[in-house]
Amino acid sequence: MDNKKEINAGILIIGNEVLSGRTKDINTSTIALWLNSIGIQVSEARIIPDVENTIINTLNEYRKKFTYVFTTGGIGPTHDDITAESVSKTFGIEYGFHKEAFAILEKYYQPGEFTDGRQKMAKMPVSAKLILNPSSGAPGFNVENVYCLPGVPSIMKSMLGGITNSLVGGKPILSSTISLRTVESEIAKSLTDVQNNNKDVEIGSYPFFKAGKLGVSIVLRSTDQSKIDKCNSEITNFVKEKNIETVELE
Amino acid sequence: MDNKKEINAGILIIGNEVLSGRTKDINTSTIALWLNSIGIQVSEARIIPDVENTIINTLNEYRKKFTYVFTTGGIGPTHDDITAESVSKTFGIEYGFHKEAFAILEKYYQPGEFTDGRQKMAKMPVSAKLILNPSSGAPGFNVENVYCLPGVPSIMKSMLGGITNSLVGGKPILSSTISLRTVESEIAKSLTDVQNNNKDVEIGSYPFFKAGKLGVSIVLRSTDQSKIDKCNSEITNFVKEKNIETVELE
Repeated sequence: MDNKKEINAGILIIGNEVLSGRTKDINTSTIALWLNSIGIQVSEARIIPDVENTIINTLNEYRKKFTYVFTTGGIGPTHDDITAESVSKTFGIEYGFHKEAFAILEKYYQPGEFTDGRQKMAKMPVSAKLILNPSSGAPGFNVENVYCLPGVPSIMKSMLGGITNSLVGGKPILSSTISLRTVESEIAKSLTDVQNNNKDVEIGSYPFFKAGKLGVSIVLRSTDQSKIDKCNSEITNFVKEKNIETVELE
Repeated sequence: MDNKKEINAGILIIGNEVLSGRTKDINTSTIALWLNSIGIQVSEARIIPDVENTIINTLNEYRKKFTYVFTTGGIGPTHDDITAESVSKTFGIEYGFHKEAFAILEKYYQPGEFTDGRQKMAKMPVSAKLILNPSSGAPGFNVENVYCLPGVPSIMKSMLGGITNSLVGGKPILSSTISLRTVESEIAKSLTDVQNNNKDVEIGSYPFFKAGKLGVSIVLRSTDQSKIDKCNSEITNFVKEKNIETVELE
C-alpha cells in the first residue's frame, strides 16, 4: 500500500463549474477505472479553477510528482478555456496554431465554416503530440507526461483508447467486492484481522443504502488474484460464522 | 474573479474508493452548493487516499490556505477509517474517547449493543466540537477551521445544516443559466465581448448533450443580482441577433 515505487498518476479537473457544485465530476472515475485496467494507480485528483497561475503551479507540482498527469476541461473555444495556453507556459513552448490540429479541424468543417472561434481549438503548444478525437473534431494533446483532454465526459471517454498504447503500465489492478447486509461496526474487528493477515491487499469497507436497507461493501484490490482469493475466503469464513447475509448489487 | 480576499474553502475527499474510480464523488458538489448559498467560494477540492501522512500534510496546507476546510470520509469504525486519528496528529490533540460523542452513541444503541467496534466512532481529537448527526448516531467533529464529515452522501448532507451558523460567510453567490441550441464556437467571440464588458461576473460556457442534440449552457455567477441581469440582457441581445434558439433544461 506504499505508492512510491508504483507507476502512478494524478488527475487535474480544471473548471469553475465543478468547484461551484453545478457540475458533478465523473471524469475522475472514468479515467481511474481505465488506468487501473492497465496497471496504473491514481494517487491524487484535484479540482482547480480556470485561473492561469493555479493551473501552471499545479501542473508543475504534478508532472514531477506523478508518472502521468491527466487534465480535463478548458480546451474548448470560449474565453474561459485557458488550459492549452497554460500548458504552453508551463513547458515554455510557443502557444499557437498546431499544424496537424489545424488541418484536422479544417477538414472536419464545411468550407467557410471553420471560423475564427473554431480555429482557437487548433491553438495549443505547437510541438505537442495530438490525442485524436473520434467523437467530434477537436483533438486533445500531450506534452511530455501531461495528457490534456476535454471536459465533456462522453467525448473525453471516447479519446482514452487512443492513449492506452503510449502509456507504460504495470500489472492490472484487480478488484473483488463482497456486499453484506450488516453494519460496519459488526465486522470491523474481523476485517482488521483479515487486513493484518493480508497486508498486500487493499481492503476497503464502504457502507451503502439500497432498497431502504443499509449494508456494507467490502472491496479487495491487488494485482495478484491469488491474494484476493485468499482474503475472500477468510472473509467468507467470518461472514458464515456471524450468520451475515450477502447481497447481490448490480 | 480574484479569490484572495474572499472567504473561501477547500474540500478534502478522503478515500481510496474514490481514487480507484469505484465511487463517484458527489460530496464536493453538495458541499459547494451549500457553501455558495452562504457566500463562501470553494477554491479547490482534492481527492486523497487513506494514508496518514498524506492526510496530515494536506490538512496542514489547506488549513493555512483556506478560511474553512471540509473533509469527508474515514470517520467510520473500520480499519481503513483513519481521518479522526490523522486530524488529532495534525493539531497535536490527544486521540481518544470524546466524552460527549461517547454519551451520544451509548444512548443511541440498545443496552449491550455499544460494542468495541462501535465505540471507535467516539474516538477523535478529545477537545473537538461535535457536529451532530440527525441521520444516524455517529457525530462528525470540528477543530479550529477544519470540519470533518462522513463519506456517505445522504448522511453527510444531513449534517451540513448544523454547521451553517458557525460559519461566517459573505453575500450569497447568485447564479443564472441560459441554455442555447448552438455550439461554443458560434458564440465564443460575442461571449468574450460580454465578459470584457462585465469583469465582475464570472461567465462560464459549458457544452451539453440533451435529447440527441448538442447545446451550450452559459452560467453567470456574482454576488450582485443587478450585474447578472446586465450580463443576461447583453447575452439575450446577441442571441436574438444570431437567431439562436434557447432551450429549457430542468
